[in-house]
Amino acid sequence: MAETSIDSLKAVLAQKRASAEAQGQAIRFLKASGASPSEVESTLNSLKAMKVEVEVLSKELNSRVSENGGGNRDAFRQGVVNALERRLFYIPSFKIYRGVAGLYDYGPPGCAVKSNVLGFWREHFVLVENMLEVDCPCVTPEVVLKASGHVDKFTDLMVKDEKTGTCYRADHLLKDFCKDKLEKDLTLPEEKAMEYKRVMATLDDLSAKELGSKLKEYGIVAPDTKNPLSDPYPFNLMFATSIGPSGLSPGYMRPETAQGIFVNFKDLYYYNGNKLPFAAAQIGQAFRNEISPRQGLLRVREFTLAEIEHFVDPDDKSHPKFKDVSNLEFFMYPRDEQKEAKPFKKLQLGDAVKKGIINNETLGYFMGRTYLFMTSLGIDKERLRFRQHMANEMAHYAADCWDAEIESSYGWIECVGIADRSAYDLRAHTEKSGVQLVAQEKFAEPREVEKLVITPSKKEVGLVFKGNQKKVIEALEVMKEAEAMEVKANLEAKGEVEFFVCTLGQSVTLTKNMVSISKEKKKEHQKVFTPSVIEPSFGIGRIIYCLFEHSFYTRPNKAGDEQCNVFKFPPLVAPIKCTVFPLIQKPEYEEVAKLISKALTRARISHKIDITGTSIGKRYARTDELGVPFAITVDSSNSVTVRERDSKDQVRVSVDEVAAVVKDVTDGDSTWADILSRYPLHSSSSSDE
Amino acid sequence: MAETSIDSLKAVLAQKRASAEAQGQAIRFLKASGASPSEVESTLNSLKAMKVEVEVLSKELNSRVSENGGGNRDAFRQGVVNALERRLFYIPSFKIYRGVAGLYDYGPPGCAVKSNVLGFWREHFVLVENMLEVDCPCVTPEVVLKASGHVDKFTDLMVKDEKTGTCYRADHLLKDFCKDKLEKDLTLPEEKAMEYKRVMATLDDLSAKELGSKLKEYGIVAPDTKNPLSDPYPFNLMFATSIGPSGLSPGYMRPETAQGIFVNFKDLYYYNGNKLPFAAAQIGQAFRNEISPRQGLLRVREFTLAEIEHFVDPDDKSHPKFKDVSNLEFFMYPRDEQKEAKPFKKLQLGDAVKKGIINNETLGYFMGRTYLFMTSLGIDKERLRFRQHMANEMAHYAADCWDAEIESSYGWIECVGIADRSAYDLRAHTEKSGVQLVAQEKFAEPREVEKLVITPSKKEVGLVFKGNQKKVIEALEVMKEAEAMEVKANLEAKGEVEFFVCTLGQSVTLTKNMVSISKEKKKEHQKVFTPSVIEPSFGIGRIIYCLFEHSFYTRPNKAGDEQCNVFKFPPLVAPIKCTVFPLIQKPEYEEVAKLISKALTRARISHKIDITGTSIGKRYARTDELGVPFAITVDSSNSVTVRERDSKDQVRVSVDEVAAVVKDVTDGDSTWADILSRYPLHSSSSSDE
Repeated sequence: MAETSIDSLKAVLAQKRASAEAQGQAIRFLKASGASPSEVESTLNSLKAMKVEVEVLSKELNSRVSENGGGNRDAFRQGVVNALERRLFYIPSFKIYRGVAGLYDYGPPGCAVKSNVLGFWREHFVLVENMLEVDCPCVTPEVVLKASGHVDKFTDLMVKDEKTGTCYRADHLLKDFCKDKLEKDLTLPEEKAMEYKRVMATLDDLSAKELGSKLKEYGIVAPDTKNPLSDPYPFNLMFATSIGPSGLSPGYMRPETAQGIFVNFKDLYYYNGNKLPFAAAQIGQAFRNEISPRQGLLRVREFTLAEIEHFVDPDDKSHPKFKDVSNLEFFMYPRDEQKEAKPFKKLQLGDAVKKGIINNETLGYFMGRTYLFMTSLGIDKERLRFRQHMANEMAHYAADCWDAEIESSYGWIECVGIADRSAYDLRAHTEKSGVQLVAQEKFAEPREVEKLVITPSKKEVGLVFKGNQKKVIEALEVMKEAEAMEVKANLEAKGEVEFFVCTLGQSVTLTKNMVSISKEKKKEHQKVFTPSVIEPSFGIGRIIYCLFEHSFYTRPNKAGDEQCNVFKFPPLVAPIKCTVFPLIQKPEYEEVAKLISKALTRARISHKIDITGTSIGKRYARTDELGVPFAITVDSSNSVTVRERDSKDQVRVSVDEVAAVVKDVTDGDSTWADILSRYPLHSSSSSDE
Repeated sequence: MAETSIDSLKAVLAQKRASAEAQGQAIRFLKASGASPSEVESTLNSLKAMKVEVEVLSKELNSRVSENGGGNRDAFRQGVVNALERRLFYIPSFKIYRGVAGLYDYGPPGCAVKSNVLGFWREHFVLVENMLEVDCPCVTPEVVLKASGHVDKFTDLMVKDEKTGTCYRADHLLKDFCKDKLEKDLTLPEEKAMEYKRVMATLDDLSAKELGSKLKEYGIVAPDTKNPLSDPYPFNLMFATSIGPSGLSPGYMRPETAQGIFVNFKDLYYYNGNKLPFAAAQIGQAFRNEISPRQGLLRVREFTLAEIEHFVDPDDKSHPKFKDVSNLEFFMYPRDEQKEAKPFKKLQLGDAVKKGIINNETLGYFMGRTYLFMTSLGIDKERLRFRQHMANEMAHYAADCWDAEIESSYGWIECVGIADRSAYDLRAHTEKSGVQLVAQEKFAEPREVEKLVITPSKKEVGLVFKGNQKKVIEALEVMKEAEAMEVKANLEAKGEVEFFVCTLGQSVTLTKNMVSISKEKKKEHQKVFTPSVIEPSFGIGRIIYCLFEHSFYTRPNKAGDEQCNVFKFPPLVAPIKCTVFPLIQKPEYEEVAKLISKALTRARISHKIDITGTSIGKRYARTDELGVPFAITVDSSNSVTVRERDSKDQVRVSVDEVAAVVKDVTDGDSTWADILSRYPLHSSSSSDE
């Protein structure tokens, strides 16, 4: 329906534009024919009104197109998804049993792409940064996820069809309603439109109660049956299970891999020689029992995460290698730009850190490394941006957070979250487990520090406040420095002070003899602290899906009667690096093809040999759709041609050399341009491509 | 307790041996001193009796030692596990929360070993054999595992402490009881001992009822509380969960990765150009909710499997590359040898297939490839055997099955199962899903085949058998050829025949008019069949644990006052390939070390740089315990030494060359012997190793 509405908008707009143009011609004609100024003026006014109308309509159209992906985007996506499913990049899981929403398999080429992406991730992050990689189980006991907050807070709000029991995400229903109104109701008054837009913008902030009352207010019912809906209530998104046979040890499938690293902090810190900073990393499956998964491959119930937990001293978040990335320039969308509805813009990383837009060097370093990672994979740098979280988006403990977002046919998709989570996670596990997850730094020289010392007098407090003694004393002991010094000053000046005890919900009058407050100098030999953690977390499946969209294009075949699909994967991620085929079916050529195949296997180049009699053009088209960057065609016994996928250029190389040439350009030691300069170009006129 | 008993046995044995020796000396003395022959003879008889006693005792000791791993084995294992835990190869998962039985993390070096093993698996199997790798979710809907039989049959028998509810594996309790009796009860009559041994040997075949009555008969109670136990009942070993929010879609965490491949057979067959044979492969997590995990790292609740499903025409299980492995000789333990309690023996693979010991070439091919895989990793070929399943061990549908077993301190451990599962899995999913998982082979020429045609006459059968009509007709239709031809012959000869209808549980008398049986010739253009599947399934964690044991040894340090641990991993699996350290703390040396580290990173060699002031000997010892094969020591600005871990040989190499040298020997392009011949040996006398 959205498409029809956009199409009709386009038609109206085209009509108005045509009229405006006609009006413009009329004015020129009137002027030329010496019409009266008032006559010209009136036509001019009518033209102006028309132009305003055109402008409004065209804005509206743009916003609608970008809002729902638009007709072109849908068609483009369908093209990509068709190619992906036909070539088994993806398969809906358990298809012969009609599948399960939100579960997908990677078929052979998809699996190879995934394995290449993970291999590169391991090289780009773990190897280069000397990270400590760990591998923890998916099955996780409840206590761990209780400490992390997932048991209590990892929920979405759900409503049920009161009669059939079908479940819906409450925010989805509200969003759909508003979107539908905005798109279809052409008579919608401006203020109503504004209201719906506001609701859509604040969906994530609504409480269960607020969501429920909006659903009621708008009369929203179950979409399929029109039955009434239950009130929204939280549904925990973790897959629950039970560990062991007793039924007494609840567990969950982990919703992220990070917790496995946090609980191992002490051992990893020791492994690193009790030194900070260091980073641990983990690649593995994570699980979210989505209420009703949408957005195909982007919103799934099981997915691969690659997460880094970089532990630093909270007082020093500089990074020794920041200078290696500080000159990078890429799209950023800082908080302030978003607030003022300004567009995102290209910033230099070093500048952004210097100006305090990005909280610290380490955070910035990982943004830079992430940018390099993404663009090496083949993500279009013009459709990649780092969006800063708004204050209300971040957890209360987070110092700063940037999402790497990739533009796809679904809009801007969060693929990597890079967050400074401060000391939250380690503190939470310290508290729950009783094991101190802290770091120690020995000072070269003992340092003199001033410490606040608060000593309540139990006796005096007890005499006056009796049963409330304990609460008053606790309140005194937890005073922060500023408050304590004020209390001290007042007691010294006036002899007494009003003091609010929050556990009593009231103020009490303190007198001088009830508490002694002082600052004392102490020598400290080391500092003991909970490290901050900076967490870059990569949704591998989302990155791969976006990569598929960014790599996909179509081009006409030679005859011009068909569009052929191409995935322009760089060799780094291409599922198969090279195909080998004899130009025609001929035993000698087959022998050569097999020889080359053996040499490629020895060089560890994944390849495919195709000795079917299919036309060479069709065989090229097949491998283009798999994103194979190079094709070796055997057309003689001593030399062969090597074709590059996107330029379709071919060079002639001797049989003995060809495996080494392909390895060279696949490993990135040479570019295709190098190869072109080294070997004679082969005219492809002989082939039927 | 078992060890004490072994220790006391050892003491008795030593005593008897000493007496025997004394007796022998006495005889020599008697002879020399000219004692009477009868005197000598009597002493000689007593010596003979003593020798028999020694022999019996020493046999007993040997069998006990090998049965329970023995004191040495336990001590050895403790040494390995201590080193593994101290260097974070493994960490008990969620340790700060006191852990969960059967769940382990791989720490940094363990994770690197695992990643190397999987990388090599992918290369050795997927790349070289052009397998179709897939990647399916762990969360699996019930219907799939119902079809595969796991929902009904993937169980262990459990008993509960009637008072506390603590759960035990019934067979474990029975086994422990028997073992304990055999080890501790020195007055055990021979027939009782035989009975306990028989029970232990047939544990896996006992039904719930049989197990229950044995437990009762022996008066076995809960080991911790001595409370009575419940009857044994089956406990399903899958982790159960629920997919989506409704609670109406039961699911499980997959117990193996194979099912993901079977349900995709149709797509994969198409992807392979509708041609057989082909193999699909999958690496991923699998889950078993063990009742009470034992055997440390070998019996865990979550583990990585690497599985291959090789689909073949059941009429042709030859393998084109079998000749590449047919000359391999390794330990096999065929069914017949096991039946006759003979030892396992070295066989040539080609011979074993030719003689029909191994069912077919494809099965044999994968055994050979598995042997090469294991030994390349560093598994000792003298402690690796392929044991054939006994007839009662195999599923009824399996054609043949061999387990690759590795000898460890726990005894012989099944690490890989290589089974010819015939058409079972594809048939089961065809039946449950209604989707035909079959292959088609078009004949070059149509073939004439003879087909059995059985046409019962409904009317005649109905007239005589009334309500049993349907059952008689069904029984007639499913007759196999031999039976049908016999019925036909009898009907033709005698006019009637007795015919057993199993659904009625009785015979009926058939007359000639009730059924027509004939053979008809038909032309067939293709055959449609369910492929057989040959499944090599690798338990990666078990292989890695055994590899740790096979790689571990100790050697004295230079001073001779301490034993140092070494893991002699081949470079292929070593977690870190190389360390770099300055001989002494000196800025120039540090600079060189950093330069070399950069060159190693560029060459993608995982390494560790250690610039602490620790003595060089200690730094070597540390890296030996991590299994790092090469150490680069910077002791000048233009050349460095490279030390090989096991020989401790050192060569001198220039700074510019050293990264390339290490890469060469790490990638397996050169051996250490090659390096020794190419570069001057460096005397290590200067170091304090």
